[in-house]
Amino acid sequence: MAAACKIALDAMGGDHGPEIVVPGAALSLVRHPELSFQLFGDQARINPVLARHAGLAARSEVIHTDLAIQMTDKPSQAMRRGKGSSMWLALEAVRDGRCDVAVSAGNTGALMVLAKLVLRPMNGIERPAIAALWPTIKSECIVLDVGANIGADARQLCHFAMMGAAMARALFHVENPSVGLLNVGVEEIKGAEEVRQAHSWLKDTPGLPIDYRGFVEGDQIGQGIVDVVVVEGFAGNIALKTAEGTAKQISHYLKAAMTRSLMSKLGAMLARGGFKVLKQKMDPRRANGGTFLGLNGIAIKSHGGADALGFASAIDLGYDMAGAGIVTRLTADLAAFQGKLTAIATE
Amino acid sequence: MAAACKIALDAMGGDHGPEIVVPGAALSLVRHPELSFQLFGDQARINPVLARHAGLAARSEVIHTDLAIQMTDKPSQAMRRGKGSSMWLALEAVRDGRCDVAVSAGNTGALMVLAKLVLRPMNGIERPAIAALWPTIKSECIVLDVGANIGADARQLCHFAMMGAAMARALFHVENPSVGLLNVGVEEIKGAEEVRQAHSWLKDTPGLPIDYRGFVEGDQIGQGIVDVVVVEGFAGNIALKTAEGTAKQISHYLKAAMTRSLMSKLGAMLARGGFKVLKQKMDPRRANGGTFLGLNGIAIKSHGGADALGFASAIDLGYDMAGAGIVTRLTADLAAFQGKLTAIATE
Repeated sequence: MAAACKIALDAMGGDHGPEIVVPGAALSLVRHPELSFQLFGDQARINPVLARHAGLAARSEVIHTDLAIQMTDKPSQAMRRGKGSSMWLALEAVRDGRCDVAVSAGNTGALMVLAKLVLRPMNGIERPAIAALWPTIKSECIVLDVGANIGADARQLCHFAMMGAAMARALFHVENPSVGLLNVGVEEIKGAEEVRQAHSWLKDTPGLPIDYRGFVEGDQIGQGIVDVVVVEGFAGNIALKTAEGTAKQISHYLKAAMTRSLMSKLGAMLARGGFKVLKQKMDPRRANGGTFLGLNGIAIKSHGGADALGFASAIDLGYDMAGAGIVTRLTADLAAFQGKLTAIATE
Repeated sequence: MAAACKIALDAMGGDHGPEIVVPGAALSLVRHPELSFQLFGDQARINPVLARHAGLAARSEVIHTDLAIQMTDKPSQAMRRGKGSSMWLALEAVRDGRCDVAVSAGNTGALMVLAKLVLRPMNGIERPAIAALWPTIKSECIVLDVGANIGADARQLCHFAMMGAAMARALFHVENPSVGLLNVGVEEIKGAEEVRQAHSWLKDTPGLPIDYRGFVEGDQIGQGIVDVVVVEGFAGNIALKTAEGTAKQISHYLKAAMTRSLMSKLGAMLARGGFKVLKQKMDPRRANGGTFLGLNGIAIKSHGGADALGFASAIDLGYDMAGAGIVTRLTADLAAFQGKLTAIATE
């Protein structure tokens, strides 16, 4: 995957704009020297930062615009006045084939509506999804939708399965990624109607490019029992946030426990190598970046508060996604699924 | 709260039946000497275990039945042939006022249908909920519904708020517990329609016995920013399981980190006092027990796999709930809310 890859950066997105975006790109370029960049935004703010990164400057083109989506803008405002903004232009660069992927740390709601507007949903897709990389005790899995939309019908859940599988193929290099539907465990209420319908379609449709494993529960996500976990966006977003909150909570407990006595402090100091490994494991910056799937182009959302290391992870993710030709492949997968599903439904 | 309290125990519930239920009750009796028990189940299995706990035996009555709900029974099977089972009889003892609370480690689905059948929902309640105690960095909060039903309309979410508040009043001894509605953070999709409707009703209804705080996100549950978190059962169950899974996952990381080198091992040994505190903090047995709310009687579900310590926590929870007269109080709260809501709706 050392092919050239051009990244469109919304340089004004996030809490710090170019101050984070530019050093983030520089970090990513060190890992992937074949990258080049188009940076969209206020050149008066971008250029001084870029001047401090000669290597990056040589691989970058700055495209000026005065317009920027604010972190506080509502999606409806972004819709009305987003045209020509740094976020819009980055997406347009992907749409027009000038770049392979767009990365923005701008606000999620705005990025969602603009990405949908500029890149357009793939044929047959009503709802794009946001996919998150979720650390597991084995490695990582993909969870989607983590909040592009609330609710999903059975067909949309099946589309999510296809999308997540395409992403897993790109990132994990497995031809038939294992896929589970997130559900609740109690027999009586074995999931909402749409989850059960999606289950039967995924189970009964022959020849899908996935290894469908049935239902999984919330506590199995982190165990890494499947490559892809499918869920509608309300519960998916709550699951993601809850996991983040629990990790923070346990860090808090751990810190308190390790500083409660002189002996604990001494022990913690001796074990600092171990704690360093743990800290890396739990570093949310390593898994930064939500991927918009189901659009005719790749858009990556970085956390608005990410630092340069976090933003570099989001760029790396975009690079991996672009390298795998995910859009072409996913388009074909979805078309095949629709055909097979229609065949089942009309049997 | 040293008033006498009689607990109805489904002695056959859970993975181990009386082998866990009886020692669990003995543990709880040590903490609360004013407890007494009725144990329902197979006396040939109960009596030998009870004989090893003289103190408990003196405060217990064994009521024999041959029938027991199996852990693998479907709720529909429990419905058909549950009558007269140890679970059923424990619930009946509460219904008939012979006991103050029923505790079972039997299967959730069966307990749900039998509890609904025997205890009946409160006036105006279509859906009981299961409430969980959730550890926070401050202390604990209550989250409901964690899986009694999938989905909830706006009125049901408001009922959950009342139920959770009544439980918080009983356990946390605050007159106006703070309540939040679990939602997703993205502006555009600020929650499902029913969540928004419930939000406006809780906000605009004057004189409710709660301190309504608006929306909360998944990562705020563990921060303890409210006493009660309200969510429909699908997302609630997924949140609960995901938090459990994340805690397990981090324990796994921590263990690996502390055994990776001799120095880490030595440090961990010195810090073992701190680790012990951490382990206690994260011990799921401390928060064992889901409470069925919205029924004319109190039923507590213990984890099926809980040990005696875990089962004792579930009994303790039932004891606290009974001592607060929660059923009477909640019935009055719900009636008042209905009246006020009707007034708003017909304005």
